[in-house]
Amino acid sequence: MTQLHGVVPPVCTPLTPERELDVPSLERLAAFLIEAGMHGLFVTGSTGEVAYLPDETRYRALEVVAGVAAGQVPVLAGIIDTTTPRVIEHAKASKAAGADALVATAPFYAPTHPVEFPGHFRAIRAAVDLPLVAYDIPVSVGHKLPTDVVLELAEDGTFAALKDSSGDLDGLRAVLERTEHLVCFSGSETLADLGLFIGAHGLVPGIGNVDPHGYLRLYEAAMRGDWAAAKTEQSRLRRLFEIIYVGDARGMGRYSSAIGAFKEGLVARGVITGGTTSEPMIPLNDTERAAVRSHLADAGLL
Amino acid sequence: MTQLHGVVPPVCTPLTPERELDVPSLERLAAFLIEAGMHGLFVTGSTGEVAYLPDETRYRALEVVAGVAAGQVPVLAGIIDTTTPRVIEHAKASKAAGADALVATAPFYAPTHPVEFPGHFRAIRAAVDLPLVAYDIPVSVGHKLPTDVVLELAEDGTFAALKDSSGDLDGLRAVLERTEHLVCFSGSETLADLGLFIGAHGLVPGIGNVDPHGYLRLYEAAMRGDWAAAKTEQSRLRRLFEIIYVGDARGMGRYSSAIGAFKEGLVARGVITGGTTSEPMIPLNDTERAAVRSHLADAGLL
Amino acid sequence: MTQLHGVVPPVCTPLTPERELDVPSLERLAAFLIEAGMHGLFVTGSTGEVAYLPDETRYRALEVVAGVAAGQVPVLAGIIDTTTPRVIEHAKASKAAGADALVATAPFYAPTHPVEFPGHFRAIRAAVDLPLVAYDIPVSVGHKLPTDVVLELAEDGTFAALKDSSGDLDGLRAVLERTEHLVCFSGSETLADLGLFIGAHGLVPGIGNVDPHGYLRLYEAAMRGDWAAAKTEQSRLRRLFEIIYVGDARGMGRYSSAIGAFKEGLVARGVITGGTTSEPMIPLNDTERAAVRSHLADAGLL
Amino acid sequence: MTQLHGVVPPVCTPLTPERELDVPSLERLAAFLIEAGMHGLFVTGSTGEVAYLPDETRYRALEVVAGVAAGQVPVLAGIIDTTTPRVIEHAKASKAAGADALVATAPFYAPTHPVEFPGHFRAIRAAVDLPLVAYDIPVSVGHKLPTDVVLELAEDGTFAALKDSSGDLDGLRAVLERTEHLVCFSGSETLADLGLFIGAHGLVPGIGNVDPHGYLRLYEAAMRGDWAAAKTEQSRLRRLFEIIYVGDARGMGRYSSAIGAFKEGLVARGVITGGTTSEPMIPLNDTERAAVRSHLADAGLL
Repeated sequence: MTQLHGVVPPVCTPLTPERELDVPSLERLAAFLIEAGMHGLFVTGSTGEVAYLPDETRYRALEVVAGVAAGQVPVLAGIIDTTTPRVIEHAKASKAAGADALVATAPFYAPTHPVEFPGHFRAIRAAVDLPLVAYDIPVSVGHKLPTDVVLELAEDGTFAALKDSSGDLDGLRAVLERTEHLVCFSGSETLADLGLFIGAHGLVPGIGNVDPHGYLRLYEAAMRGDWAAAKTEQSRLRRLFEIIYVGDARGMGRYSSAIGAFKEGLVARGVITGGTTSEPMIPLNDTERAAVRSHLADAGLL
Repeated sequence: MTQLHGVVPPVCTPLTPERELDVPSLERLAAFLIEAGMHGLFVTGSTGEVAYLPDETRYRALEVVAGVAAGQVPVLAGIIDTTTPRVIEHAKASKAAGADALVATAPFYAPTHPVEFPGHFRAIRAAVDLPLVAYDIPVSVGHKLPTDVVLELAEDGTFAALKDSSGDLDGLRAVLERTEHLVCFSGSETLADLGLFIGAHGLVPGIGNVDPHGYLRLYEAAMRGDWAAAKTEQSRLRRLFEIIYVGDARGMGRYSSAIGAFKEGLVARGVITGGTTSEPMIPLNDTERAAVRSHLADAGLL
Repeated sequence: MTQLHGVVPPVCTPLTPERELDVPSLERLAAFLIEAGMHGLFVTGSTGEVAYLPDETRYRALEVVAGVAAGQVPVLAGIIDTTTPRVIEHAKASKAAGADALVATAPFYAPTHPVEFPGHFRAIRAAVDLPLVAYDIPVSVGHKLPTDVVLELAEDGTFAALKDSSGDLDGLRAVLERTEHLVCFSGSETLADLGLFIGAHGLVPGIGNVDPHGYLRLYEAAMRGDWAAAKTEQSRLRRLFEIIYVGDARGMGRYSSAIGAFKEGLVARGVITGGTTSEPMIPLNDTERAAVRSHLADAGLL
Repeated sequence: MTQLHGVVPPVCTPLTPERELDVPSLERLAAFLIEAGMHGLFVTGSTGEVAYLPDETRYRALEVVAGVAAGQVPVLAGIIDTTTPRVIEHAKASKAAGADALVATAPFYAPTHPVEFPGHFRAIRAAVDLPLVAYDIPVSVGHKLPTDVVLELAEDGTFAALKDSSGDLDGLRAVLERTEHLVCFSGSETLADLGLFIGAHGLVPGIGNVDPHGYLRLYEAAMRGDWAAAKTEQSRLRRLFEIIYVGDARGMGRYSSAIGAFKEGLVARGVITGGTTSEPMIPLNDTERAAVRSHLADAGLL
């Protein structure tokens, strides 16, 4: 899977005011990201509100993005569900909808033991012949993928890649040190430079929807070993990332604020039409939307 | 919803060796539980492997149980999914499949703030006109339903009932003290007597699949205030419940061991045909199955 | 240790406005509790601000209480410190200061594995010849005492008793079912009736400082099997216990509010002179102190 | 406090077989570290078994190290205890014993709210006139120091420095971005290069006892911006750090294995006489000690 690398943003899912998929906006967003030089697109990830989207919306979003990508860059599909049989259903439907690779987490909701993880991922890999990306996201699933499990499944060909959203750079570093058979992505927006410094091959930054060029600069600086430039770009992006806190004063949840801010940022930049988010997320109010725009202006994006 | 009360076991979902729904076994199980005097049946709960079942299997299981129940006892359906839009889809399909009431958890996977919970549950209640049961299960969803939220949604009619699987008897007691508009069920197998002692109206014991008569005796003793008898029955059931640990020596997960043991117990009692569990659960081996039967024999069930 | 049983409140440690030990107040408090029929006194427990008291204050408080008790009831001393060598120092000093039994937790601060717990407790027991009470308080030490460890150390005579402040009634029940060599105390103020219902031999309620007669009534009702009376008394005490939340509106910590409320309650009842708490706890303000008194009036204590 | 910076290892506390302070070994260790170019010495930290040492042993160890240092490098003293009044006692005694700076954590054992943290640290700073270092170690105290609290106490002069053992590089980066009034140390052995990359001023690596020259090379490479060299040295030190896992096969605790390995490494290098650790830590066996030596040989240290 030589083409998996680089900046692969988790694509936002634009919705109409009635919370239907906004196809023209999604087409514009996919085109915007490809033109910005993104190395791949990750559809129906956490940033794409996968946990909120009915199945048909998930697959339709994937079709739309795959249509725009048209083979220019690989399209990864999140196949996020509680356990193996349900994940396999998403895997099959996602392949049919045009996915080039599949992104799966460990089981969740059902208390699951790490000893069951290999069976879970191997069954998915066996069911659908597409590269499988391990999605390590303990904040959502409640447990971290153990390094041993990741290495075992990298060595036997189950995993083609790893998207690390665990925040555990020590664990990611251990994986990078111990295998050459795994393409590793950092899911961090704010420590992306550190992920690349320790050897990660790419980034999956949610706010890359809003500022893909910034993450491309960061990635390219890192690839040429210019760590000072990477760090400077990261500092700028860290300030921009503070848009996710616009809703804190009202005490709304993390996703309400962050997903709302990403979408409002895309509206502000003229990429998508509206910033509607899924239920039960709380919509940003006028003050919060203005704060997002102010951050974008400070970052030179408006 | 006067008929919601009493012992309402979360019905196991028998599977064929190929992991398809075993309809004849499920019919026998539903009939066995109704004949044993259960006051309701809870389909597609955690014990029913809801997190492992594809949608069609969920709804088919519900249809089968509703068909056997035929109005003799209410059938509750777990509508377990990550967030509001996906849960509402299950709510609609479950109503169509014959559910008398719906059981929903707080959102999971997507980090959600308690401030978003009321909107979540109200949207579900508004979408489908069936009594809604709040399912408080922090071990699966990652956060406890705050007492204030439960009370608010009881008072405004969103919640008809609460299934408390939080293990927090102090919190359940606070709810029972502060509202008369909520039917409260304890989800504990091992502290069921304590739940009833503090005023809960019913029980949802997973191992009630295997020994419904025991939980009925416990419930009836509690209802007549014979706490010594309730405690004695509970002690017997606590020993039986140790079947969930048969897999511990092999280090398998909690569900693999517990669900496997419940199903093997039903096989041993001649109710269902086979003990197959969903992927990625690890099947019990011969030693473990023998241990389950030994526990049942000790409990006088064979 | 036949005399360990019944209601054994964790005695508050009255302080002067300069945060010195208020000896006359402590003498009055000890006398008040003994006259109220308490079966023992637990000095330098969590409620006694043990974690805030310098060593000399700890031992002086113990001497004062032991002097008042004068053998009428056993005096238990909390020997709370991070690991074995430090705990043993407290054990020796506490015996010298008049303790009849010692109360020790698992190690804390230093990450410790359960496999090290037996060595910890056995070394303490070997160092000082007094009955040893296991203090299971995961909220403070970060891990629960495993049932197997408690049973092993009960059977070999290391533990004479257990004070369970874990909130895990299921675990306490398992201990009670499996050994007859351990006197078990529930540390819960709000589920004390449940602790006695499952077989616990006594209670260690912090708010027992303020209303010892209430907990005595609860205990005696339980001992004679009058569960309805026990439950009624518990309900009254649950309402009283809400004094611990008086500081919530200001967002102070749990201890600031609870310890402040217990002490203010004792001031209101005329037992101690002032409600000063240790640094860095935040003192109650006038509104909060009035709220405490209002709760006491409602409970019939003023 | 201009001299606080660079590599400041948390000095091990050598013990005799009878678990008394081994003064000659400690003198040799302090001299070894100073000769290796360490920029300071941190006595009675977690690696120094502070949580296991009686008060007199703590202060004697500090005196010994301060005596060897004799003003050549600053000596920091951990004043680790549960809450303010007890910490202040250690602060006074540590100043008397020769400390140049004091290192204090947030309160532990007593459930404490972040709103109480400023009062805690300000009272310590006010009680003893020495630079105060905030020790952020959530694994031991149960909560992370909030960024806002750290910044507030840096700005008002309460904190001179921060030792970050939280593993949260994102939080450390936020502190570094927002204040210039704080000397920041990373407590990580395995991500020390990343800490310096984001701007930290120094390191406090436990295994720096065993290989101070390695951490000095890493630090100096980072200071001259040679990130490739820093990373190479870090990789070597990561392999060496695996000595902390020698006890894993026996299932002992983290500290038993890590502290035992550090001490055995110092024995192997001829610096201290014996590897005895405090109770209740489990001593390394012959196999485990041989494994430590094998790691040191691989790292070129024998």
